[in-house]
Amino acid sequence: MPPAADLGRALCVITGASRGFGRAVALDLCRLVQPGSALVLVARSGADLRAVQAELTESEAGRAGLKVEVVAADVGKLESLENIVRTSRDVFNDEMEKIILINNAASLGDVSKYVKGFTDMAEVDAYLSLNVSSAMCLTARLLQAFPAHAGLRRCVINVSSLCALQPFRSWGLYCTGKAARDMMFKVLAEEEPELRVLSYSPGPLDTQMQVEARTKTADPSIKKTFSNMFAQGQLLTCEASSAKLMKLLLEDKFTSGEHVDVFDV
Amino acid sequence: MPPAADLGRALCVITGASRGFGRAVALDLCRLVQPGSALVLVARSGADLRAVQAELTESEAGRAGLKVEVVAADVGKLESLENIVRTSRDVFNDEMEKIILINNAASLGDVSKYVKGFTDMAEVDAYLSLNVSSAMCLTARLLQAFPAHAGLRRCVINVSSLCALQPFRSWGLYCTGKAARDMMFKVLAEEEPELRVLSYSPGPLDTQMQVEARTKTADPSIKKTFSNMFAQGQLLTCEASSAKLMKLLLEDKFTSGEHVDVFDV
Repeated sequence: MPPAADLGRALCVITGASRGFGRAVALDLCRLVQPGSALVLVARSGADLRAVQAELTESEAGRAGLKVEVVAADVGKLESLENIVRTSRDVFNDEMEKIILINNAASLGDVSKYVKGFTDMAEVDAYLSLNVSSAMCLTARLLQAFPAHAGLRRCVINVSSLCALQPFRSWGLYCTGKAARDMMFKVLAEEEPELRVLSYSPGPLDTQMQVEARTKTADPSIKKTFSNMFAQGQLLTCEASSAKLMKLLLEDKFTSGEHVDVFDV
Repeated sequence: MPPAADLGRALCVITGASRGFGRAVALDLCRLVQPGSALVLVARSGADLRAVQAELTESEAGRAGLKVEVVAADVGKLESLENIVRTSRDVFNDEMEKIILINNAASLGDVSKYVKGFTDMAEVDAYLSLNVSSAMCLTARLLQAFPAHAGLRRCVINVSSLCALQPFRSWGLYCTGKAARDMMFKVLAEEEPELRVLSYSPGPLDTQMQVEARTKTADPSIKKTFSNMFAQGQLLTCEASSAKLMKLLLEDKFTSGEHVDVFDV
């Protein structure tokens, strides 16, 4: 079967949508959904988020009636999850045939120290809450708000990383959180056969997180690897990586729950 | 090289030591360490813990001078970690040539619901704090309290599970936490080449956790699998599984950071 030409009439919820990969995904989804669709964009920074909203509203899709709502909130907070679900309910209508949730919001954690430096439970708790619990609970709340029924296809994307599969020295929190998320979404895929679940590893992206990686990573050889990738132009653009994710969504051939790397698309 | 006959003069710290697998490990270590060694046993239940302490103190090793200290505390609490480290420092002496930390304390999480049922961030946060953060921070604190130096071998065991590698329906929290821990200890192994790190999967054990699994698991087929294993006598005893872990420790040939399953020993 050839890939679909578009993603249909969809409600798309994207966390971490104000910049980097999340913003690129928002721009792509905006072009690929049919008229009558809606995007719910979530990020901590209200100003950046409203800039993306303005850009999308002025785009061709925006002018053709695409609804773009924003929730300026930290996904690590309970009331944020409630706001996201309420806003999603408000813009949803029965003519929508698809829901796509992109769990993209994430933090790198303190990469200036090794695992043996993490003696403070509050720091580790806060990291796991933002990067693991919030993704689980937002996904659960949206699935409950929009239960399975004929005529509605539901798709949940976990923005993952090579770090979910492979240990990186001084990236203890990030690797731990990404491994946790991959497994959580694998369990979800087993539990909900009608749901489409994908852990997508977007590759080394030219983002603010890579600046942190190049400047703050404690391990000298890992730090050098990131610096060299940057110097040699080996980082991917968010646009290029988002295009690969769109290809996966349009083809819709992935096995639910699997981890797919950008370099394998 | 043939396996060592014993584990030398060691300080062993065991969490979740009052019953089940942790208790079996404590009994085995007690037999395998040389005179002049010490065990620090940690568990929430003070009464059960003191029963194990009495048993060990009255054993041959206890009568030969093995020190057995207990810390009745919840490893999910900061002050507990401080107590464990202080007690470990108190019983350590310079003639000890080995430190063995067994990160065994764990909870199953609510298996009566699927991932889509986890809408409460506080519940997920609490689970990850007890099962992931506490293991990371206890390990970090002990490694800092007993830094690497010539003549001291340090070994950290992560009591893992098949659930770290494979999704089980309605075991979302448990799988997520175990996957997170395996990765965390893989990163640690990469970071500390002199350290010996092992993720040991003890197999389906005939413990209180298996009673919970048989009676509370939401997914009917997973629940039936556990009930059948019990009915057909396929559960392992804690003693048999602990013996395999001791074999791994005595042979000391595992690759640091790797996941080893009881059925492969």
